[in-house]
Amino acid sequence: MGGEVRRIALITIGGTIEKTYDEQSGELANRRSIVRRMLSELRLEATEVTVHELLSKDSLDMTEADRDRIVDAVRATGGGGEGGADGIVVLHGTDTLALTGERLYERIPEPRVPIVLTGAMRPFEMKQSDALQNLTEAIFAAGVLAPGIYCAAHGRALQFPGVRKDVARGTFVKG
Amino acid sequence: MGGEVRRIALITIGGTIEKTYDEQSGELANRRSIVRRMLSELRLEATEVTVHELLSKDSLDMTEADRDRIVDAVRATGGGGEGGADGIVVLHGTDTLALTGERLYERIPEPRVPIVLTGAMRPFEMKQSDALQNLTEAIFAAGVLAPGIYCAAHGRALQFPGVRKDVARGTFVKG
Amino acid sequence: MGGEVRRIALITIGGTIEKTYDEQSGELANRRSIVRRMLSELRLEATEVTVHELLSKDSLDMTEADRDRIVDAVRATGGGGEGGADGIVVLHGTDTLALTGERLYERIPEPRVPIVLTGAMRPFEMKQSDALQNLTEAIFAAGVLAPGIYCAAHGRALQFPGVRKDVARGTFVKG
Amino acid sequence: MGGEVRRIALITIGGTIEKTYDEQSGELANRRSIVRRMLSELRLEATEVTVHELLSKDSLDMTEADRDRIVDAVRATGGGGEGGADGIVVLHGTDTLALTGERLYERIPEPRVPIVLTGAMRPFEMKQSDALQNLTEAIFAAGVLAPGIYCAAHGRALQFPGVRKDVARGTFVKG
Repeated sequence: MGGEVRRIALITIGGTIEKTYDEQSGELANRRSIVRRMLSELRLEATEVTVHELLSKDSLDMTEADRDRIVDAVRATGGGGEGGADGIVVLHGTDTLALTGERLYERIPEPRVPIVLTGAMRPFEMKQSDALQNLTEAIFAAGVLAPGIYCAAHGRALQFPGVRKDVARGTFVKG
Repeated sequence: MGGEVRRIALITIGGTIEKTYDEQSGELANRRSIVRRMLSELRLEATEVTVHELLSKDSLDMTEADRDRIVDAVRATGGGGEGGADGIVVLHGTDTLALTGERLYERIPEPRVPIVLTGAMRPFEMKQSDALQNLTEAIFAAGVLAPGIYCAAHGRALQFPGVRKDVARGTFVKG
Repeated sequence: MGGEVRRIALITIGGTIEKTYDEQSGELANRRSIVRRMLSELRLEATEVTVHELLSKDSLDMTEADRDRIVDAVRATGGGGEGGADGIVVLHGTDTLALTGERLYERIPEPRVPIVLTGAMRPFEMKQSDALQNLTEAIFAAGVLAPGIYCAAHGRALQFPGVRKDVARGTFVKG
Repeated sequence: MGGEVRRIALITIGGTIEKTYDEQSGELANRRSIVRRMLSELRLEATEVTVHELLSKDSLDMTEADRDRIVDAVRATGGGGEGGADGIVVLHGTDTLALTGERLYERIPEPRVPIVLTGAMRPFEMKQSDALQNLTEAIFAAGVLAPGIYCAAHGRALQFPGVRKDVARGTFVKG
């Protein structure tokens, strides 16, 4: 928490948080990453965020191969060994975020830095959205939590294993 | 970080973050707390925030007696002993936030829970503002940090003693 | 344009402008009217807007019977004869707005007051949207234009007959 | 109201609508024009807006010489004779907007095009503001009203002479 610059690797997979509206079709879908637009609305001191656009998918459409690519990307950005980022944020669709979190926990049981998954129940492009709040929390969490795999959203951090989506309440819970 | 409800005491002193615009005079000033309006824009799971409207002041106008009242309020809400909140957030003008943080550190050197001060460089009522980001970070910090006195803002947590405002950069720094 | 109160009848049919997001399904759809929420963001002096929630439909799903109901509602609120509103606004999906405009022109060729149709290319609930601009223009137009059937959107008023949607450009044009 | 491009000259004087916040001083003031940022939030079809940054002043600080410059600028952009814009919008502080309107009416009693003054009770930079609504109305009015001098704001157009600010209600009235 000192004066030097903190390096955050932000890996985005897409999901609801990044869905954009198409005027011709009238549909919300994952077309491209808009996380840089989100980041431009935050004020981050001594924090260097490097964006890795891995996928742009609704998380219900993710394959096992996609999940393996996430594990590889987390390892490559420094979550699995020496060097690399001081913290990792993974932007992910909420529907299978917990599946990816468990997979990361299996493959990287003792990460060197905090690995924080987040997403949103409502797209960033909507006036009312939990997108910016959750991104704020995930970046903050990646700077202050102990090494481990977490989901940060809606005011709290939940540590893997054992996190799941509570579909009825529209949030994440433990156990 | 489990399933039970976390209790956050939010003590507000006012400051830029809560300044509102008066159409007749054309002036921004501290008139009343708007923190409940801010909270209504956040989505907080299993988190109970109790608001204590202590003062509504520009922090440059605060007196020593005001600062003593803050210490008393922090103690009363549970920061100094058994019972009470699981975490404390203090909403404060940025100009003398560090002074209040040092005072809290002197008087409550070993708090039972995290005590997190925050504020904003731009009022919540403005379109572009760090208010909601900093409030998000402070509430999150009050849930995950170890007991201590902190300033949370702009993506990071800085622990007292030794925090100060960097006026030129418009943020808080350590040392 | 004097001091007395102007009475505007606002008939809503739904359309993209009123689509809301459902977190469970992840879909934008017409579920209920949100025009009162839109109106609460406008500042209207000496203007009394009475909302008539006629339908809540994507305009591609409208039937001939629905269009007849609109003609009846416009007549009932005062567009066709003595008494009633000083101006009428019809909130409508853009895809078949022109069809409804032509129908109104056929059935009420010489209306007593301005009848102004509008809609939006992007839902009001999105951060970037033409919804509030177009509603502002339609209400303003209903107060200043001569009796007739119009489409007001994107900075201009186009008079029926002969208005159509330009799908590629995402706006309305004449001829 | 046809297919060709409408040319609007937008002369800005500043006023509350364009006040910006300075983080160092904590003050709202006229520093530079932000009308291009406002225009970028509107969707205007077949409308070409040319911005003339004449002054950047609180209208209470305007001098008689400033008011003469406005008359000259309106004449130069086409309000007084052949050629030039199809409509003129003047962005102005609300406190002396009526004074400028009367001056324009005296000097240009029979303008060739509509000349529409507008302003706002709350700066555009605030979340809740009448700025974009009033700008929308003024641009729309400049396209549909008959030649004359008007104030457009809060849902209606009031024609000079005889318009004044109602300070208590925070709007413009006639008579």
